[in-house]
Amino acid sequence: MSIQIITISRQFGSGGRTIAKKVADELGFNYYDKEIIDHVSVETGFSKEYIEERGEHAPGKTILSYGFEPQGVPGIMNGMSAADYLWSIQRQVILKIAEEDKPCVIVGRCADYILKDFDGVFNVFIHADMDFRKERIVKLYGESEKKPEKRLIEKDKKRKTNYKYYTNQEWGDGANYDLCLDSSFFGVDKCAEIICNLVKNS
Amino acid sequence: MSIQIITISRQFGSGGRTIAKKVADELGFNYYDKEIIDHVSVETGFSKEYIEERGEHAPGKTILSYGFEPQGVPGIMNGMSAADYLWSIQRQVILKIAEEDKPCVIVGRCADYILKDFDGVFNVFIHADMDFRKERIVKLYGESEKKPEKRLIEKDKKRKTNYKYYTNQEWGDGANYDLCLDSSFFGVDKCAEIICNLVKNS
Repeated sequence: MSIQIITISRQFGSGGRTIAKKVADELGFNYYDKEIIDHVSVETGFSKEYIEERGEHAPGKTILSYGFEPQGVPGIMNGMSAADYLWSIQRQVILKIAEEDKPCVIVGRCADYILKDFDGVFNVFIHADMDFRKERIVKLYGESEKKPEKRLIEKDKKRKTNYKYYTNQEWGDGANYDLCLDSSFFGVDKCAEIICNLVKNS
Repeated sequence: MSIQIITISRQFGSGGRTIAKKVADELGFNYYDKEIIDHVSVETGFSKEYIEERGEHAPGKTILSYGFEPQGVPGIMNGMSAADYLWSIQRQVILKIAEEDKPCVIVGRCADYILKDFDGVFNVFIHADMDFRKERIVKLYGESEKKPEKRLIEKDKKRKTNYKYYTNQEWGDGANYDLCLDSSFFGVDKCAEIICNLVKNS
């Protein structure tokens, strides 16, 4: 098995996170999703809520994002916006995981781009049609004031903008990934099975 | 086996056509690539060379493309450009193949979009990194005055523009396909094997 690191990027509501967890469990790989937030929180002093909200979203270039938001890290950001500082620490955490904690599965956070020069990395993108995703987010996260379709479009737009800003690549462009799967076509369990089989035979 | 039609879109030089042929042979499916050109040539009176050059390329909106190029079809185009007329006939041919000649594999020509309302269609996109594709086109088609990278970029750009013009979708966007594979990551034979296994188990 030559694949040691699997990165899984995903449309909101596609089941990408569930697939990633199943793959990690089946292969016995370490799993990094919200775990990355814990590391970044320790490194930066930013709250977990702030990191979760901003870690995959477009940097907000308001005056408030220049050094005012985080607590207890005076002078540490060297003029970077809080979003850029968060990105740089998150990047270091992902590089450290790739060096020290493989085999592993890493969800989102531009890990495919950050690890592009590493050997043994397998980059996967999971997407699904709108009906599948609408049903899934309402089931998982409940109803909200916003219609499910609007929530999906907004969340994907934020991820797309963030990815473009930090990688200069198009999020979801097939050419960026070794494998793209439509989870509404295959189903969540089958996607996990396809990935596991490909990794086992690598 | 519920999948009856496989469409394979591909970056130039990725080996997508070879993969498509292997899949058709292995599964015993009918294979449509240049065969579509023969049908379109019979229907339109356009030469095979003209159809091959224009069938997947952006419509050229020059005055010459309005009714002057094809021979022997006076009045038939009803004011459509030759490119739009070619598209409409090619679309009809693909729809007829899907109705009458399945199970089948269809290469390129926006078949994924044209057949989007059909059941049992499996849409695949094959891509590869630049080095893999450069080496492949020089091996298959020989050297030319243009550098391989320039040939690849130009050809993909034409396919992308053509696809966008007729489908209003982004060519190569992972979300348009059920499966995207990097043939430089897996290898051509393995890509064919992956597709065959998924179709056999569908």
